[in-house]
Amino acid sequence: MASGSPKSLPSKNQPPKFQAPKGTRDFYPQDLAVRHYIEGVWRSVSINHGFDEIDGPTIEHLDLYTHKSGPGIASELFQVFSGKDEEQVAAMRAEAGGLAPYALRPEFTPTLARMVAAKANSLPTPIKWFAIPSHFRAERPQRGRLREFMQWNVDFLGDDSPRADAEVIATAVAALQSLGLDSSNLRVKISSRQTIVDLLLANNLPEANVEAALILIDKRDRLGPEAFSQQCDSIGLHWGHFDSAMQAVSRRLSELLAMKSDTTEYSVEFADQNTNVAVNLGLLKELVSGIESLGIKGWVEVDLSIVRGLAYYTGTVFEIIADGERAIAGGGRYDNLIESFGGPPMPACGFGMGDVVLANLLHDKGLLKPEMEYLPRPHAFIIAANDEAAVNLPGIVTRLRRKGFHIRHSYKPTRHVGKLLGEANKGRALAAIILGDKLSENIVELKDLGSGQQRDLSLDDVPDALRTLIDRHAADA
Amino acid sequence: MASGSPKSLPSKNQPPKFQAPKGTRDFYPQDLAVRHYIEGVWRSVSINHGFDEIDGPTIEHLDLYTHKSGPGIASELFQVFSGKDEEQVAAMRAEAGGLAPYALRPEFTPTLARMVAAKANSLPTPIKWFAIPSHFRAERPQRGRLREFMQWNVDFLGDDSPRADAEVIATAVAALQSLGLDSSNLRVKISSRQTIVDLLLANNLPEANVEAALILIDKRDRLGPEAFSQQCDSIGLHWGHFDSAMQAVSRRLSELLAMKSDTTEYSVEFADQNTNVAVNLGLLKELVSGIESLGIKGWVEVDLSIVRGLAYYTGTVFEIIADGERAIAGGGRYDNLIESFGGPPMPACGFGMGDVVLANLLHDKGLLKPEMEYLPRPHAFIIAANDEAAVNLPGIVTRLRRKGFHIRHSYKPTRHVGKLLGEANKGRALAAIILGDKLSENIVELKDLGSGQQRDLSLDDVPDALRTLIDRHAADA
Repeated sequence: MASGSPKSLPSKNQPPKFQAPKGTRDFYPQDLAVRHYIEGVWRSVSINHGFDEIDGPTIEHLDLYTHKSGPGIASELFQVFSGKDEEQVAAMRAEAGGLAPYALRPEFTPTLARMVAAKANSLPTPIKWFAIPSHFRAERPQRGRLREFMQWNVDFLGDDSPRADAEVIATAVAALQSLGLDSSNLRVKISSRQTIVDLLLANNLPEANVEAALILIDKRDRLGPEAFSQQCDSIGLHWGHFDSAMQAVSRRLSELLAMKSDTTEYSVEFADQNTNVAVNLGLLKELVSGIESLGIKGWVEVDLSIVRGLAYYTGTVFEIIADGERAIAGGGRYDNLIESFGGPPMPACGFGMGDVVLANLLHDKGLLKPEMEYLPRPHAFIIAANDEAAVNLPGIVTRLRRKGFHIRHSYKPTRHVGKLLGEANKGRALAAIILGDKLSENIVELKDLGSGQQRDLSLDDVPDALRTLIDRHAADA
Repeated sequence: MASGSPKSLPSKNQPPKFQAPKGTRDFYPQDLAVRHYIEGVWRSVSINHGFDEIDGPTIEHLDLYTHKSGPGIASELFQVFSGKDEEQVAAMRAEAGGLAPYALRPEFTPTLARMVAAKANSLPTPIKWFAIPSHFRAERPQRGRLREFMQWNVDFLGDDSPRADAEVIATAVAALQSLGLDSSNLRVKISSRQTIVDLLLANNLPEANVEAALILIDKRDRLGPEAFSQQCDSIGLHWGHFDSAMQAVSRRLSELLAMKSDTTEYSVEFADQNTNVAVNLGLLKELVSGIESLGIKGWVEVDLSIVRGLAYYTGTVFEIIADGERAIAGGGRYDNLIESFGGPPMPACGFGMGDVVLANLLHDKGLLKPEMEYLPRPHAFIIAANDEAAVNLPGIVTRLRRKGFHIRHSYKPTRHVGKLLGEANKGRALAAIILGDKLSENIVELKDLGSGQQRDLSLDDVPDALRTLIDRHAADA
């Protein structure tokens, strides 16, 4: 679906051929049906878990993003200006180092934080919201990373206990289970920014370089080993030591958590440096206990190499990793963000899950049916077997549609019932209704295209017959 | 929901307060529920009428819009550039008179035309598609006109007969009926660009000024009488004569069509100029006959003052007008557009209907329930009446959610059943399930919050009991 090449230039003799912008998608009916299937699972799982759906503008003031991250973030965004404000834009760009007044949203959390901050006094807590908007990032498209994509955002605000973290993780897992995935495909890797920072400091990292180290660790797969190693050296991070300590601690924490141990402090030794650090396991323990009570402990392990790239995370962070490599969701706690957007102090946690990597994964695992099967099935295909019937067809079609049925018919002039039944079957209609010689007596023929059974009935009885057929089909499915 | 003022500047002592960009909307849960109600009607009516849903990118290459309309259109668009391409953008802007490479879509038809053109050879005809995307226009927001809005687009391609026009009009009407509107609120005003052009020429308008006259007539309400009159004079359009002739012809055509007359030509006399013109009524007649067979003739009248602003319309055009003034939908035939986008010759017609004017109209007519009632109702609210029950609550909640039920519970520490029942009722749950002293025997209490009836039952029987309750509730609604 993603178009891989820029639009072609018009040739001399042909009208111009236009293409979707690079990294965006055209959703033809079967493509959209698959996307709607995934979004439908996200939506129903969110609702069942007690989250309310929200939405926000597709564009935001650019400074909603530069506010927390600095002007550097602008280079990763699509910037937007109103065509009428040419002068104003020129002035703003000059003033702001070439920036436009608006940006396409790269993530939903700043919009959510803005919305919560604006109404924090009138919203009952906890606030449990989800959203399924499109997002945009101005980077080179590659497999799993497009320039426009859908993302499911689930957020739980106003509760600082790990039960909130556990509940958003359980919501993510419930959707993945509903899509057919299980813990043999996927691992929920939980981590704690505070624990990582404690370990970094214990490993003699200068305190001023902690933020830089977190960003660097998050980017290490994208950087490649050589560049990563150089940048570690430049900030005084002894990666070899730190990495092996971190892995050892992660394993040991996973074991401790699995053992239901009451240990809440755990001493880490950096072997060749004789350094010890006491890690506070309290929150991680509470989180795992919450996860256990929600029945998804088998999906979860501790992996302190998960740090998440966004600066606003404050505590627990997590990623859901497929086949040991592909991150299909990520999130964590951002307890200071609402306040920083002008709201009251409000603890918060949440995650995002994009549609592109997830759809690729479902496809690779054979968990998607043929695209066609996600399209809504017509309840009946109406066939006019003679010219008189053809005159009556539009009225009959209209009356059934007004009763809420999904009705199709052929636009071909043929009266050949066999051919028309072929068209009905190809369109996956549940039934065909044949208007033939008995139409003057108000009698039509109903053919169940699943069983092949057919019978005459009064036109007045068609709605009840269709309803029975639809119910039976729904029960079978 | 629309924010009326630009974002406020940060004060000295407070963190910055951010707002949605002017003319865009924050959709809190109740706002989004209303929007989803309208979109849901659009979607189910489209599907029942045999249309398949599609979607496209939110941004398109800017020249998709300037291709047909010239660079002037850019001033009405939000222009978009990638933050990384600063040099490229500067070069493009210099070359293209200050234009960016992309634009937020102001309408869906160019995207649709591009998508049809790209796959015209493999798509079976007729092509019946609908879409419900967001659209953007860079103009001053006012009541009914925002800068970001949702629009329902319905298109029927590959069929040049008026039955296609009739079917898209019937689809629009079916949705409006389903939303509670009827022909006393709304009129479908149909017109024909060819007939208007014939009349303009008969009224001695210079042929070179026909396009300008059409654009001017479409804009007359927005221009105000004085500016309109001046501009008419400047292109040689004698508006007084023309307007009265047009109204007379519209009335006469409406009469002729209502009479099922076989007249297909109708002679128009411009009284004070002794000019006659033979108007071809064939297509309009066929259209009205198609509309009649779809049972919506009572909604339709001829009004040749409807011309539509977009240059790509070629024949029949129509608008749906509420209370004689507000246009809530508009469309028509655009038989040359697909070819102009590089596709094969393909006749086409369709319409667009925005969410903002429609929601205002439904609100004004009292056709919307309180917003709250559009939110999904929880199937059950689980109450822990004692501390032991509280320990078991998360597991019970999880098991019911996994079975597909919408389950909520309190996050407050209280065990006061009366207070918790209050929370359940406030959240509009269908039932409360009370975990009390008999939980150790696997017995819970189910209270139907509609009827007030309550009874003890085994925890294992809760799913069946909830399903019965949900079915009964659905049947009542």
